[in-house]
Amino acid sequence: RRLLPLFLGLFQGALLLFFALFVTYDEPSAQAENANLVANKVYSTFPFFQDIQVMLVVGLGLLLTFLPCYGLSALTHNFLLLNFSMQWALVLQGLLHHFHHGQVQLDLHKLLISEFAAVTVLISVGAILGRTSPCQLLVMATCEIPVYLTSEWVIINCLGVLDVGGTITIHVFSCYFGLGVSKALFRAGQQPLHPKEAPTPRSDLMSLVGMLILWVFWPSFVAVLCQPGDAQHRAILNTLLAMSAGAITTVVASSLLERDGKLSPGHLQNGSLAGGVVIGAVADMAMPPVAALALGSLSALACVLGFRFLTPLLGRKLSLLDQCGIHNLHGLPGTLGAAASAVAILVASKDTSTSHFLQQALHQVAGLAVAIGVSLLGGLLTGATLRLPCLAQPPERFCFDDSLYFKIQDQAENPRPDNTTEEGALALKE
Amino acid sequence: RRLLPLFLGLFQGALLLFFALFVTYDEPSAQAENANLVANKVYSTFPFFQDIQVMLVVGLGLLLTFLPCYGLSALTHNFLLLNFSMQWALVLQGLLHHFHHGQVQLDLHKLLISEFAAVTVLISVGAILGRTSPCQLLVMATCEIPVYLTSEWVIINCLGVLDVGGTITIHVFSCYFGLGVSKALFRAGQQPLHPKEAPTPRSDLMSLVGMLILWVFWPSFVAVLCQPGDAQHRAILNTLLAMSAGAITTVVASSLLERDGKLSPGHLQNGSLAGGVVIGAVADMAMPPVAALALGSLSALACVLGFRFLTPLLGRKLSLLDQCGIHNLHGLPGTLGAAASAVAILVASKDTSTSHFLQQALHQVAGLAVAIGVSLLGGLLTGATLRLPCLAQPPERFCFDDSLYFKIQDQAENPRPDNTTEEGALALKE
Amino acid sequence: RRLLPLFLGLFQGALLLFFALFVTYDEPSAQAENANLVANKVYSTFPFFQDIQVMLVVGLGLLLTFLPCYGLSALTHNFLLLNFSMQWALVLQGLLHHFHHGQVQLDLHKLLISEFAAVTVLISVGAILGRTSPCQLLVMATCEIPVYLTSEWVIINCLGVLDVGGTITIHVFSCYFGLGVSKALFRAGQQPLHPKEAPTPRSDLMSLVGMLILWVFWPSFVAVLCQPGDAQHRAILNTLLAMSAGAITTVVASSLLERDGKLSPGHLQNGSLAGGVVIGAVADMAMPPVAALALGSLSALACVLGFRFLTPLLGRKLSLLDQCGIHNLHGLPGTLGAAASAVAILVASKDTSTSHFLQQALHQVAGLAVAIGVSLLGGLLTGATLRLPCLAQPPERFCFDDSLYFKIQDQAENPRPDNTTEEGALALKE
Repeated sequence: RRLLPLFLGLFQGALLLFFALFVTYDEPSAQAENANLVANKVYSTFPFFQDIQVMLVVGLGLLLTFLPCYGLSALTHNFLLLNFSMQWALVLQGLLHHFHHGQVQLDLHKLLISEFAAVTVLISVGAILGRTSPCQLLVMATCEIPVYLTSEWVIINCLGVLDVGGTITIHVFSCYFGLGVSKALFRAGQQPLHPKEAPTPRSDLMSLVGMLILWVFWPSFVAVLCQPGDAQHRAILNTLLAMSAGAITTVVASSLLERDGKLSPGHLQNGSLAGGVVIGAVADMAMPPVAALALGSLSALACVLGFRFLTPLLGRKLSLLDQCGIHNLHGLPGTLGAAASAVAILVASKDTSTSHFLQQALHQVAGLAVAIGVSLLGGLLTGATLRLPCLAQPPERFCFDDSLYFKIQDQAENPRPDNTTEEGALALKE
Repeated sequence: RRLLPLFLGLFQGALLLFFALFVTYDEPSAQAENANLVANKVYSTFPFFQDIQVMLVVGLGLLLTFLPCYGLSALTHNFLLLNFSMQWALVLQGLLHHFHHGQVQLDLHKLLISEFAAVTVLISVGAILGRTSPCQLLVMATCEIPVYLTSEWVIINCLGVLDVGGTITIHVFSCYFGLGVSKALFRAGQQPLHPKEAPTPRSDLMSLVGMLILWVFWPSFVAVLCQPGDAQHRAILNTLLAMSAGAITTVVASSLLERDGKLSPGHLQNGSLAGGVVIGAVADMAMPPVAALALGSLSALACVLGFRFLTPLLGRKLSLLDQCGIHNLHGLPGTLGAAASAVAILVASKDTSTSHFLQQALHQVAGLAVAIGVSLLGGLLTGATLRLPCLAQPPERFCFDDSLYFKIQDQAENPRPDNTTEEGALALKE
Repeated sequence: RRLLPLFLGLFQGALLLFFALFVTYDEPSAQAENANLVANKVYSTFPFFQDIQVMLVVGLGLLLTFLPCYGLSALTHNFLLLNFSMQWALVLQGLLHHFHHGQVQLDLHKLLISEFAAVTVLISVGAILGRTSPCQLLVMATCEIPVYLTSEWVIINCLGVLDVGGTITIHVFSCYFGLGVSKALFRAGQQPLHPKEAPTPRSDLMSLVGMLILWVFWPSFVAVLCQPGDAQHRAILNTLLAMSAGAITTVVASSLLERDGKLSPGHLQNGSLAGGVVIGAVADMAMPPVAALALGSLSALACVLGFRFLTPLLGRKLSLLDQCGIHNLHGLPGTLGAAASAVAILVASKDTSTSHFLQQALHQVAGLAVAIGVSLLGGLLTGATLRLPCLAQPPERFCFDDSLYFKIQDQAENPRPDNTTEEGALALKE
């Protein structure tokens, strides 16, 4: 049945209702001075915002097209989930705000915060990419956003954790949420390699272009919420250093681990970005530039080692499916970044009163624990929900295939005369 | 014959002559204060300008590559037309300015205005993409730019229409101009489906990437000419809301209209952008955020319905060819946006003297009528001109094929031993 | 052997050591006023910096993917070389600075300068793309960066050459360095056309997208180091005009030179960018806009003529291999730009004391001579070094092939059962 349009249509209706009742714009300021302030604020935030949009819509979308017959779905589902999650986060944050302060006044900053919430969904999806229906993904987004907002509120507002680039609140959280969903959803564990799962040189190339776009704009993601001035400048520099060191370490590690010294495209697509994940929690802290380089290298190493050893191990021991290896790109570097932030705080404290710094360092670790705990629990529950039969999970042999979700006109490219009937029935059911 | 290089070469000569005689730069300002002003102006305009360049050159170019054997031509013709039309608009606007004020002082704002004029050509081309020669497209651009400048002058300067994002002046105008050209050029009406006309999953993927690039940068297009400060801030937010709502509504509508609930890539490539078209006329007006959401949803719905029902109908009844469906992406949402701007003005008037507002609302409608009337007339005349035999319109069986315009080295991919001679003769003739 | 990871690993270690010993950040400024200054500096530089990153990482990377089986390698080697060269330039400049002033204080401007140094390597590689191993490319980068820094210091600091966009210091230098390397490395001269050397329509399309990205962002590259205010504004406008004229002239020239008036994708990919190369030396000088248009047209003409006549001639007479035609895109337009800068200075002098201007014009020519001389010498010596057998130059029949450097999973696309053993042995040797 037509669950997807029904669900989205109802949501759009609720969104319109919510906006009609509760959301307005700021009154335009009467004084010229204030107008200047607003203009400057737009000029200082909007370029960062656009960079982040390019990352999420184009960069991340292309990164996910490494599945050769699933490119349209990867791009479209990513795009749909970004929009849905952002709107849903806007509604939830607006409702909260409304109960405390009345009318919600929309501005670019509120949209940015909602976009950050949506990022968690886009990352978590990586664990189950290609084996799930759009309905499942939307239900997952519906569950993940409130859990994220709660977790972020506890970590930032209650514990006072410092995490300007979202290492703990976004990357660690979304990784373990995604793994939780995957564990609960695919209880049977690892399936044998699907014939459409292997990337081709062409799909690897598109995915590599996506990685490069993410790599270029990552400093904007880390620095957008920093204090303007020195802190933001430092955050940009630290991110650039970490990502540059990570890129080279990825080549070293991949070439040492693969047979014949060849490079693995998958390692490059992920390891080069690990530096951006690890640096988020410490980007604006007072630490020497060498620390950013070292963290970038370490995280890329952890990521490549994770792909080579940990992912197969988790698959065998826990029968855990992690399609894009989000544990290697977000889980390991995120945990490393959280630990680094605690260490950086302790080191910075050496010449002043230590007790306050020690407490802050403990809070960083506590924040990490909250992120992992809440996300795993939330993910497992969400994953169990996704097993509902009405959500139309695709059967194994229709996984990783655009033709299940798209009207592809040139059927000559994917001839499959024998199972058209069954596929039609399946799509109809959804 | 070699009409294309001759035409372009002559034009380049005339451009050099015009610049040599009439165009200079501003004198550098002597005071440090003025230098600061110029610097701030550059910093506030240039990022928007770059965003728009990316949209037109990369985004729109890729969007047009949905024809699988016509990618090189689509990208190149789009690029060529953008440059030619911008220069031609610069010359025409410069001449006008020269007759009134003497020397033309070039600045970034004048280039931006010329770029906006060029956009109309790039949109109109969508109606006749793939069935026309570059010579025909250049002649079309030569005719369209002066008509656009006249129409825009009447709409904005005489009627005082409010249209900051070009909904009426650009989108509506260029849509009906393109349809007029198509009607006059292809009198025979709809041909049967050409074998190279059907997109493949790969070409749909490239086109989808183009759509995403356009989607991301569209707020810059709408907001670049706004008053800095609150109005620009509001224009950015309204565009973001409209495009986000439009993206989700497109998925809903496409999935409801297609068999089996599958999505059509063509709907996604166009419907997701309809929100940007509709919002242009009202982006900086005083209206609640919910209106932007509603307009985005409505326009996406109109666009998808247009593809499903209106385009086939127009093809049958009026034998009208609209290759890219520009009527669905620019005509319907543009008309909707013009109507919305009149309504928004009337609603805003509720608590003040109404007569002025009523007049403004009528002017918005009159502007829409002028845009449609002038563009249809101009398009029909232009289309009749394009039938000149010397412009070398490609015959049906060489349509949608890069190898007619490009020296493609790997002939193994497109073997066509039998008709090489005829093709050579044809290209020679052009 | 595993020379590549060894080399890169050692370098990363040295980099960490250097940063640990010598590099710090600026102390955060105590006064709010200074913080504001830093913030403004970030906002005025960072968007330009991001544009340049997109150009180098995505644009240039894609431009090099015109070799159909070498896309992964082209993108990855470009990315690796950018990071390595930037870090290496940072170390060398830091060491120099350290000996004179003590601790190095890292900021965005220093990173930008290092990135400019890295650009020379990325350009030079174009001469030998596809026939070299990553080890050879890294050794080349190791040699080129110090030669570039010396040459740039002589040209800018000793001779006082005006070259804001790097026409002489970057484009001319890197072109002749690359040609020198190619000459010394491939003494045997031109090989017959390799079967994997010919672009396909698909790889030409990707390369064209790369060109368009470079074309859009080139003004940022030229203007980033200009004086803010009028000079920067003029540099942006001149670059836009030159590139726009160059794009149209390319179409004219290519269509006149090719058989049947067809366009050559290779001409478009290069000629359209020639305007950006030529304008660098004169972009911020006082000259009328028509000069920018004329220079853009002339350089595009020179570039296309170079591809048609000069490259084959150099191949036959000097047995010089220039895989990407860097002499046509960087050598010819760069020389033209240097000459234009001398002329522009002479013309500007007409109404004031001439002697100073004459001297400056001579210095521009001297700078060109230094760039060509130093780079040719350095390139020849570097090329001789690259012949070392331990650097594992790929044998002819494994050139232009990703599968030598990448673990490509879908071997079905590149079946080569018979020579797997030899290839394995070769990769092992490296």
